[in-house]
Amino acid sequence: MSALPPGITLPKGFRAEGLSSGIKRSLRPDLALWTSDRPAVAAGLFTTNRVKAAPVELSAERLRDAPDQARAVVVVSGVANALTGPVGRQDSLDVMDATARALGIPPSYVLHAATGIIGPRIPVAKVLDALPRAVAGLSTGYEAGHRAAQAILTTDTVTKEAGATAHLADGTRVRVGGMAKGSGMIAPAMGPLHATTLAFLTTDARVSVPGLQQILQQGTDRTFNMVSIDGDTSTNDTLLALANGAAGGPLADDDPAFREAVGSVLEQLARAVARDGEGATKLLTVNVHGAQDIAEARRAARAVASSLLVKTALFGADPNVGRVAAALGYSGAYFDSGDLAVELVDGRKRWPLIQGGVPAPGLENGEGKRLHTVLQRLEEVVLEIGLGQGPARATAWGCDLSYAYVHINAQYHT
Amino acid sequence: MSALPPGITLPKGFRAEGLSSGIKRSLRPDLALWTSDRPAVAAGLFTTNRVKAAPVELSAERLRDAPDQARAVVVVSGVANALTGPVGRQDSLDVMDATARALGIPPSYVLHAATGIIGPRIPVAKVLDALPRAVAGLSTGYEAGHRAAQAILTTDTVTKEAGATAHLADGTRVRVGGMAKGSGMIAPAMGPLHATTLAFLTTDARVSVPGLQQILQQGTDRTFNMVSIDGDTSTNDTLLALANGAAGGPLADDDPAFREAVGSVLEQLARAVARDGEGATKLLTVNVHGAQDIAEARRAARAVASSLLVKTALFGADPNVGRVAAALGYSGAYFDSGDLAVELVDGRKRWPLIQGGVPAPGLENGEGKRLHTVLQRLEEVVLEIGLGQGPARATAWGCDLSYAYVHINAQYHT
Repeated sequence: MSALPPGITLPKGFRAEGLSSGIKRSLRPDLALWTSDRPAVAAGLFTTNRVKAAPVELSAERLRDAPDQARAVVVVSGVANALTGPVGRQDSLDVMDATARALGIPPSYVLHAATGIIGPRIPVAKVLDALPRAVAGLSTGYEAGHRAAQAILTTDTVTKEAGATAHLADGTRVRVGGMAKGSGMIAPAMGPLHATTLAFLTTDARVSVPGLQQILQQGTDRTFNMVSIDGDTSTNDTLLALANGAAGGPLADDDPAFREAVGSVLEQLARAVARDGEGATKLLTVNVHGAQDIAEARRAARAVASSLLVKTALFGADPNVGRVAAALGYSGAYFDSGDLAVELVDGRKRWPLIQGGVPAPGLENGEGKRLHTVLQRLEEVVLEIGLGQGPARATAWGCDLSYAYVHINAQYHT
Repeated sequence: MSALPPGITLPKGFRAEGLSSGIKRSLRPDLALWTSDRPAVAAGLFTTNRVKAAPVELSAERLRDAPDQARAVVVVSGVANALTGPVGRQDSLDVMDATARALGIPPSYVLHAATGIIGPRIPVAKVLDALPRAVAGLSTGYEAGHRAAQAILTTDTVTKEAGATAHLADGTRVRVGGMAKGSGMIAPAMGPLHATTLAFLTTDARVSVPGLQQILQQGTDRTFNMVSIDGDTSTNDTLLALANGAAGGPLADDDPAFREAVGSVLEQLARAVARDGEGATKLLTVNVHGAQDIAEARRAARAVASSLLVKTALFGADPNVGRVAAALGYSGAYFDSGDLAVELVDGRKRWPLIQGGVPAPGLENGEGKRLHTVLQRLEEVVLEIGLGQGPARATAWGCDLSYAYVHINAQYHT
């Protein structure tokens, strides 16, 4: 596996387009479309929120009904189409049906997602007007994928795109592409079917339906489900993967190189989502080792990455080790206070923060001031945490909490 | 039961004092002492955080060893004495022993709590120097209780004091007093032994050890455990109750008037803590009815009161009903989207926000603007939420999330 240049999101047989349909008053892109030139195997993970947006329910239904016939994904941004009742469901069905008609494929081959404000309906007429333009613009290559990646954004400041290639055991070269959206209302996993943002993966590998679902779930558990921005779980979280087999070759279900490529794309996207957290100025990477098992390692890492007090301390470049210890303490992970070790990783240098369960020497005085300066400089802050219990490790990603987060989310929305 | 004027925190037989020992560089009060003139029955609730401050461990041990012999509570603010290892434990023992000596009572009769920065040690010499002054100043009445209530504060902007009286079935008049501290690092219950702040209750009623523990637990479950500011659970949460029996009369364990008085004091204090959340400009009260059972009602109410997106919307006076629905959706409480009803209570007027699972008519237009104005005006925002499932109800308290919250918590602390 080797990483490809950013933006290479469309493997063989996939095309995309993104444009403005007028949902967003700003006239920024708000309608994205992906297609596969042949039926693709599809897998999906959706929000566990009890209030599910109509597109979430409809995509989940279609994955159950025709998981090996996916041909298109249509996404709108600006409105979530959640809390819209039966009329909202019909609005999404109208968008999906129109997409199918414009592409000349059966309606059941179309998947759908949405993101934006909860409550308002999709302006269906505008979307229907724009769909023929989207279909006409469908194209391969970097620019088309990038336009689609732009059209799924809301409060994001940058697109999130990633790609990877893998050589299967028999030498077949397959590609994996992905794009994601997410910078607020993002929370850790709440269950086996919980994804945390919008993300779309495409691959030209040949994979079975259960194989793709399992690869997606496993990869998501250690990537998107380890990202936390603000602890709120959306009504619209959707992660879809399409595998169209255009690269040929053997079934890639159990091929380690393929799994690694999918994992790499998911991790690149998850880190990009954390880094672009609403108002964020720093990426926070929390590595936990020495946990009793992987579930505890994840719990501990997520608790630190999600703690508001750690996030605000990070924004202030305050080496407030007590807040890290407190977050570990309420995470539910087992450890003995006296075994706790925390380091700040700064390139090759490691700054001890907690050793043997107490703050590192000098932290309240000169050493603390030096660390303050280091934290001010770092754009990615990496914490290495040892629980001293067992062999399990995990990584979580987050960001700092700034004035801008409050500003973005306190705006009167209408 | 009738409410007493604020500040009446010291029932018969209790004295208090609060002063500056020099722990806080600002020379604000940082040492509080309460005593009972006779051995009191004591009960306590402590943080469930795995990283427990030394005072938490020591008070829990003393409650196990001598639950009917409490004579004094000594509290320091400014340092948490958490993450301090064995030397921290010895520091707290030294403070407790010195308190006992100064009062002429056995060391096992002294309870202890601390709040402040995690990591640094208690400056024991300063505290020991100040203790004789604290003992000399011990007094009954409003001013003494108020000085103690001031000395337990950290980032709080106001003291939290409450009192109530009750007439037992036989006519005996008993009093309940309480004071609390807390405005950050406050989270909902994480277990049966979880308290969420520092709070100290005193009563001159006669109660049994198990009776007092049970009354305290039940009252806390529906008051302090329903307050959320930022979701972080402290290493130092401590709630202590002392009942010295000075009022005489029968055992009050099962007396409804006494339970009501304790509940009233706890609720007054819990609301005061929520209202004084770090940087808060508004108190948020979330009433949930129609839940299947009380656990689900509490889960739903707490999810809304704890949601960062609800809190920031509140700060912006944004009637963002989608965020309320989303929080209910991930709370884990069962309901059907289509049954959901949410109202904003404004004195006698009720503004519909969600009806039958969709936003109330006009909310995206003129009605939304009117609500924006209403929310700007209200200092306490009350949401009335119906889940349409069953008879259970619950109330949670929170506050908005403002720029000031970020400012307070992003300060470099050394």
